[in-house]
Amino acid sequence: MTSTTTRMAAEIAEQPAAARRTLDHLLPERDRLRGLAAGRRRVLLVARGSSDNAAIYGRYLLEVVAGMPAALAAPSVATHYRARLDLSDTVVVSVSQSGSTTEIVETQEWARASGAATVAVTNVAESSLAGSADVALVTQAGPEVAVPATKTYLTQQVALAVLVDALSAGSLTADLERVPDAVACLLDADVAAAAEALADADRVVVSGRGLLLGTALETALKMEETCLRPVRGYSYADLRHGPISVVSDGLLAVLVAAAHGPLAEPMVDLVGDLQGRGARVLGIGGTAAFAERCDLHLAGPDLPETVEPIASIVPAQVMIEQMARLMGLDPDNPRGLHKITDTELSPTAGR
Amino acid sequence: MTSTTTRMAAEIAEQPAAARRTLDHLLPERDRLRGLAAGRRRVLLVARGSSDNAAIYGRYLLEVVAGMPAALAAPSVATHYRARLDLSDTVVVSVSQSGSTTEIVETQEWARASGAATVAVTNVAESSLAGSADVALVTQAGPEVAVPATKTYLTQQVALAVLVDALSAGSLTADLERVPDAVACLLDADVAAAAEALADADRVVVSGRGLLLGTALETALKMEETCLRPVRGYSYADLRHGPISVVSDGLLAVLVAAAHGPLAEPMVDLVGDLQGRGARVLGIGGTAAFAERCDLHLAGPDLPETVEPIASIVPAQVMIEQMARLMGLDPDNPRGLHKITDTELSPTAGR
Repeated sequence: MTSTTTRMAAEIAEQPAAARRTLDHLLPERDRLRGLAAGRRRVLLVARGSSDNAAIYGRYLLEVVAGMPAALAAPSVATHYRARLDLSDTVVVSVSQSGSTTEIVETQEWARASGAATVAVTNVAESSLAGSADVALVTQAGPEVAVPATKTYLTQQVALAVLVDALSAGSLTADLERVPDAVACLLDADVAAAAEALADADRVVVSGRGLLLGTALETALKMEETCLRPVRGYSYADLRHGPISVVSDGLLAVLVAAAHGPLAEPMVDLVGDLQGRGARVLGIGGTAAFAERCDLHLAGPDLPETVEPIASIVPAQVMIEQMARLMGLDPDNPRGLHKITDTELSPTAGR
Repeated sequence: MTSTTTRMAAEIAEQPAAARRTLDHLLPERDRLRGLAAGRRRVLLVARGSSDNAAIYGRYLLEVVAGMPAALAAPSVATHYRARLDLSDTVVVSVSQSGSTTEIVETQEWARASGAATVAVTNVAESSLAGSADVALVTQAGPEVAVPATKTYLTQQVALAVLVDALSAGSLTADLERVPDAVACLLDADVAAAAEALADADRVVVSGRGLLLGTALETALKMEETCLRPVRGYSYADLRHGPISVVSDGLLAVLVAAAHGPLAEPMVDLVGDLQGRGARVLGIGGTAAFAERCDLHLAGPDLPETVEPIASIVPAQVMIEQMARLMGLDPDNPRGLHKITDTELSPTAGR
C-alpha cells in the first residue's frame, strides 16, 4: 500500500460537494421536467456500464416512488435493428457521463424520431447528448480523471432522484437534502480488513436487491474494472434461483443491503444461507441483525431506502480503491479501459 | 464419460417433437392473443432463471418484429414494494415452466389488479399461473425430469414467437414451421472437442447480442447449473464496455452469433479482439467468416435471425450435457437446485 493519494481517492472524497452542487443545480429543473412528462405514461432509460447501474436505481425509484412504469432500453433495437416503435407516450432518459458515447447519442436521436420526450443526464454540458435533449440534467461532478467512474456515478443517481422527485410532487426533497452529509460520513470508513479479504479471496460475487440492486451491480463492475478480477453481480432473486449452486468454500460474497424497507429482512436470511454453503459474507449497510451475522461489515448511510443507494456505493468505492493498491494496481488507470466507450470496434461496424 | 443416456440427453432429443406439438397447439391461439392485445401499447414480461432468458428473446422479438415496446419486469416492485402502476395499456406475459413459482404468480395477480391483460406461458396446464391468466399458452414439452430446463426453455421461446407472430400479422409463421426440423439437425453435433475444452478451461465467459443475447445468457446459466462452475454471461456491448479488461490468458470465451442480420458482422471483430487478449474462442453459429476465425466452432441452425435463437440453444445444451459427464457430474441432478423455485427462503420472509 502506498501513501500517495490516487485521483480515484481524491474524486471519491469530492462526492459530498459534488452531490451538493448537483442538487442545487438540478432541483430548479423540476418544473420543466414535470411539464415535459405531462401526459406521458412511462420512462425508458438508455445507458451502458456504470451509467446503466445508475439507471437501474432510477428504474426502481420511478416505479416504487413515482408510480411510473420504467424500463431499461436495449440500444441495439435502435442502433442496429432500427425498430419502429411508437414512443409518443414515453419519456426517454439517456445517461452517459461523457455525453459522447455514440450508441447512446444515436439511441436518443432514434427515441426523439419515435415520438419520445428526451432527458439527458450527463456530466458534460457541451456534449451532443445534452445539446440534443429536450431537457439536459447536467451533473456537477466536475472533471473526472480516474478511469473508474465514482463522482459521476453518484451524481447521476442524484439527477435521477431529482427527476423522480419532480414526478412525485416533491416526495423525496427532504431526504435528498440529507444525502451530501450522509456521503461525507462514509468517507473515513475503516475498510482495511474488507479490502484485504477481497484482495486475498479466491472468488467474489456481489448481490443486492430492489432499490439496492444497482449498487450491488456497480460494486461488482467497479471491482472488475479497477482490480481486473472477474466479479459477478447478481440480484438476490437470480442468485437464489440457480447460480447459488456454484457457491462453495473459498467464495467471498459481498451483500449490499438496505437498512429499511421491505427487502431489509430477507437479506439477513441470505447471509446464513451463503455461510451454510461455505462462503464468507462481507456486508455493506443493512439492519443491525444483518451486520451482526456478516463475517465482515461496513456501515451504510443513515438514510431512508429511497435515497440510500445514492450513498451506499461510497463504502464500496473506498474499499475497492484500497483493494487495488493492495494488489499492486493503479486504480486510476486499469488496463484496457478508456473514458469514452465506443461499443463498436470500428465506428461503422455492423451499421 | 459414461454410455448411459441421461434424462437431460433424452429431453434434449425430444425437442423437435416438443416444438412441433407446441406450434400445433399454440398457433390456433393467435386470434385470441390479437384480441387481448387490441388497444394495448406495450408488453411487460415476468420471469426468473431460464424463463427470464426466454423472455429476453421475446423482448427483442416484440420490439424488432412486432414494433411493440417491451420490457422485463422487476418482480420485487410488485411482491415487496407493492407499487401502484397503471398497466391498463399493457399486456403482461408471465413465463414459468411450472406455473407455480410464488413470486411469478403473485406478480401476475398484481398486474391484473393494475389493469393489465395477462398471458401465461407455462408447461403445466393445471398450474395456478395458467388458471388465472386471461390467455394461457401451455407449452407441450411434456414432463421435464432433469433439473436443467431444456425442452421447456425451447418451447417457451416457441410460445413467445407465436405471440409475436400474432401481433405482426403472421410475419413469422413460415419461419416458425421450419424450427422443428432445424432443431433435429442440431442434435447430432460433434461436441466432443468443445466439451473437453470447456471442462479443462480455467475460466469461461459467454457473450451474445440482440436477438441472440438470451441464448448466450441461457448458455451461461445452464453451464453454471449443470457443471457447477461460475460462468458469466455478458451482452456484447457490456463486455466491450469495461469487463473486457478481465479477459486474459486461460479464458475460454463462448460466443453465440447470428448467421444473418445487422449484428452478424460485429461478432467477427469481437473474436479477434478476445484472441488478441489471450482468450480462446468457441463459437456457436454465426457467419462463415465468424466460424473460420474461432478456435473451436459448432454449427448453428439454418434459420433467419428472428427464429434462430429458438434452435441456437441446442448445440450448447448437447455440449453442456457432455461437459458435465466429462467432469464426473450428474447432469440430471446438480447440487442445490429444485425444479420449482421459491425465491424467498421462507414463504413469509420480507412480506
